[in-house]
Amino acid sequence: MVQDEARERLVAGLGAAMVLTEPDDVARYCRDWHGDVQTSAVAVLRPGSTAEVSAAVRLCAELGLALVPQGGNTGLVLGGIPDEAGAEVVLSLDRMTRIRRIDPDDFSAVVDAGCVLETIKAAVEAEDRFFPLSLGAQGSCRIGGNVSTNAGGINVLRYGMTRELVLGLEVVLPDGTVWDGLSTLRKDNRGVDLKQLFIGAEGTLGIVTGVALKLLVKPTQVETALLALGSVEEAMALYRRARTDCCDLISAFELIGPEAVALAQIAHPDLVDPLPGAHPAYVLMELAGTGLVDIRALLDRFLEGAMEEGLVLDGVVAASRAQALQLWRIREGMNDGQAMLGAHLRTDVSVPLSQVARFVAEAHAAVARDLPDCRSVAYGHVGDGNIHFNVLPPQEGGPGAVAARIKAAKETVNAVLDRFGGSISAEHGIGRLKRADFEARLGGVQEGLLRALKGALDPAGRMNPGCQLHRR
Amino acid sequence: MVQDEARERLVAGLGAAMVLTEPDDVARYCRDWHGDVQTSAVAVLRPGSTAEVSAAVRLCAELGLALVPQGGNTGLVLGGIPDEAGAEVVLSLDRMTRIRRIDPDDFSAVVDAGCVLETIKAAVEAEDRFFPLSLGAQGSCRIGGNVSTNAGGINVLRYGMTRELVLGLEVVLPDGTVWDGLSTLRKDNRGVDLKQLFIGAEGTLGIVTGVALKLLVKPTQVETALLALGSVEEAMALYRRARTDCCDLISAFELIGPEAVALAQIAHPDLVDPLPGAHPAYVLMELAGTGLVDIRALLDRFLEGAMEEGLVLDGVVAASRAQALQLWRIREGMNDGQAMLGAHLRTDVSVPLSQVARFVAEAHAAVARDLPDCRSVAYGHVGDGNIHFNVLPPQEGGPGAVAARIKAAKETVNAVLDRFGGSISAEHGIGRLKRADFEARLGGVQEGLLRALKGALDPAGRMNPGCQLHRR
Repeated sequence: MVQDEARERLVAGLGAAMVLTEPDDVARYCRDWHGDVQTSAVAVLRPGSTAEVSAAVRLCAELGLALVPQGGNTGLVLGGIPDEAGAEVVLSLDRMTRIRRIDPDDFSAVVDAGCVLETIKAAVEAEDRFFPLSLGAQGSCRIGGNVSTNAGGINVLRYGMTRELVLGLEVVLPDGTVWDGLSTLRKDNRGVDLKQLFIGAEGTLGIVTGVALKLLVKPTQVETALLALGSVEEAMALYRRARTDCCDLISAFELIGPEAVALAQIAHPDLVDPLPGAHPAYVLMELAGTGLVDIRALLDRFLEGAMEEGLVLDGVVAASRAQALQLWRIREGMNDGQAMLGAHLRTDVSVPLSQVARFVAEAHAAVARDLPDCRSVAYGHVGDGNIHFNVLPPQEGGPGAVAARIKAAKETVNAVLDRFGGSISAEHGIGRLKRADFEARLGGVQEGLLRALKGALDPAGRMNPGCQLHRR
Repeated sequence: MVQDEARERLVAGLGAAMVLTEPDDVARYCRDWHGDVQTSAVAVLRPGSTAEVSAAVRLCAELGLALVPQGGNTGLVLGGIPDEAGAEVVLSLDRMTRIRRIDPDDFSAVVDAGCVLETIKAAVEAEDRFFPLSLGAQGSCRIGGNVSTNAGGINVLRYGMTRELVLGLEVVLPDGTVWDGLSTLRKDNRGVDLKQLFIGAEGTLGIVTGVALKLLVKPTQVETALLALGSVEEAMALYRRARTDCCDLISAFELIGPEAVALAQIAHPDLVDPLPGAHPAYVLMELAGTGLVDIRALLDRFLEGAMEEGLVLDGVVAASRAQALQLWRIREGMNDGQAMLGAHLRTDVSVPLSQVARFVAEAHAAVARDLPDCRSVAYGHVGDGNIHFNVLPPQEGGPGAVAARIKAAKETVNAVLDRFGGSISAEHGIGRLKRADFEARLGGVQEGLLRALKGALDPAGRMNPGCQLHRR
């Protein structure tokens, strides 16, 4: 079918208000978050309700059109934009933004998949509840995308990935039928838990249209400390000590490398180094709690013990929320600083907790050996074994030469990672960007299972084809 | 194929040491936990390794024999014993009891599926770690069965169901191939999370042979209180207050009805009522923690506030572990006491947290209306919305009459439950026992998904057929 005819049929079947066909409008939905990649699509569908999603999916099935579901389009692996061929349809959830209900006594909320994460967080806080998912993109990402990528973020250590925060789902299946699994039950062992299939599936098995979320009590005390340590090993020893000393009250435990402040200062020249002097490793640590536990006293006593033991060399505890944000600005500013240094390898890997220090050391050594002109930077959510191990090449010889260095760096880092049984995607997903690296590491048994699942739920292969696995 | 021939082929193919065929031996594996149901099987296979499980499954596939995987056989829904026809093979994991490794720095352990839960708990405690799954059957149940039923227990509130404690799985698929998903990574977003399929599947999609478990720091302080309250509503109000006051440090929050002590005393006549006087509701509450948080001081301050507010009418805090066990004996003894009163309806239902009090009131009222000669008893893990709502009929008129009352009581309770959108199986699973009630409540869309999944992974329908869904 020619694309003009497809557009006419979509407009005729769904109404002009739901279908974007103007090239400029369509192009906006076909550009990735970093703005590096621009593709195209037959059209963009913007249904406003579950019934409209169902109708849209049904019509696309009739027309034989492949669909790419899209939330806030903040993904980092090209899972939410169509491929280069321009023959797919984008289905955006950005008009489905209703908070269906918040039940503080049930510690739950039910929301449309298109709700922006920050909007949900604010709405539940107004009811004295807390939705803990926290990530850089929270002002733009939408909860359906968070579910479909099983988003992580800075508080996973305490509250789990998105998977652990989902109580129920509503999903439009590839044939347009609606599966209503929007329960808020905490415990429900009625057979296989179908919602798990769609969490992290990146829209390849169906389109998440509604989400029932687990809520918590909002922490009223949050204490933040930046600590200087002698090595990554000692950072991990501090982590183990913190797990024992601080009960389950650690909400963040971020490793930051020695170059952190300098990198952050590239982006934020006003940033003051709170711990002057060179230290081999830093940890940004947060404790959080509610009610009757004195979190500040807990942190002080913990740090006292860790300093006495010689684990912590120097440290600063934020005296106010504003000071805490300054400490977090170092962590977040590192990314901006690296970006300003030009194109570089960004990774999102994980290794077993007991292997973090060894992995970091071996990956630095491998880069120094294979790519002596590149800098490597390691930081991340080490309380979860999740490391962003980045490699910054010299920006010489033009984009092609830089891209070649980045590719070589990826091979070097992944070779070390493979020795540790690590994951090439701890939290970002696979999308189209990491598909080849994913498939190269898939055993035949695992690939067989994934393809059997895909074949069972989406036999025509029309849901985000080419995402996660190549089409067959 | 005649069964004698099947037995011969199994012995010839797998060796006599792996195959039980003597009727008495086989019968032991075909009797349910309560001893109420006795079925039969072609044979019992007892492989000692993953490779032997694989060989056994492969041979059964060749012979067209259906397999029922069995762990500790402590399930409560007839999911682990074969059906009445006697044409199935039991595959027991009871010889696979190796603890493959414990890595305290990784907060993980990898174990054979046949390890007894209590053995695992003790082994990791020797390494200063903690595996939180706790349930009555822990001295007999095996971890593969816990995974396959997504077992719950008394600490779900704090630590989650088994699903949240599993980092990775090794599974023998219906064709005998081995899927090695035994990673201990905390964060791994490489596509659809296949292990989720097998958790709670009750062996209908494959046989779990190895499990990677998430470990925690062992709580060094556990404080237990029994509290008297004015109503179930007030118990739930106390729960909400505890969530706020006590951070995330509540490890159990059990509702106990006014008849608790009397029921427990039937089984344990020596049991002393620690809170004399009749109260409409009781809560058995536990706080647990490690390190620097003073859990006893926290509990005391919490109770002070709750008593000032008038929520708690009376209470006792255990002064020693022995006293705590006495308080738990009331909770556990209730079950034994009820059993001694004769056959009765045991349920394992859940409702939204905000609906617990209303559900309990309406279920009691419905039983009083429909079955005025029966007593109803409500208790359970209400911090998770999980209630054991039991109905005790008069033991008159012979077993047939009692069974009819139990069936009528089930219909009455389930009718109330359905109005609350509740689950007929919060933690026990479906098995064969609850299949009809499960299927009666399955929408067509959900059934379609479940059957598509089953068809994709077990096209010949040989894995625990008749469990969860009827054969087709």
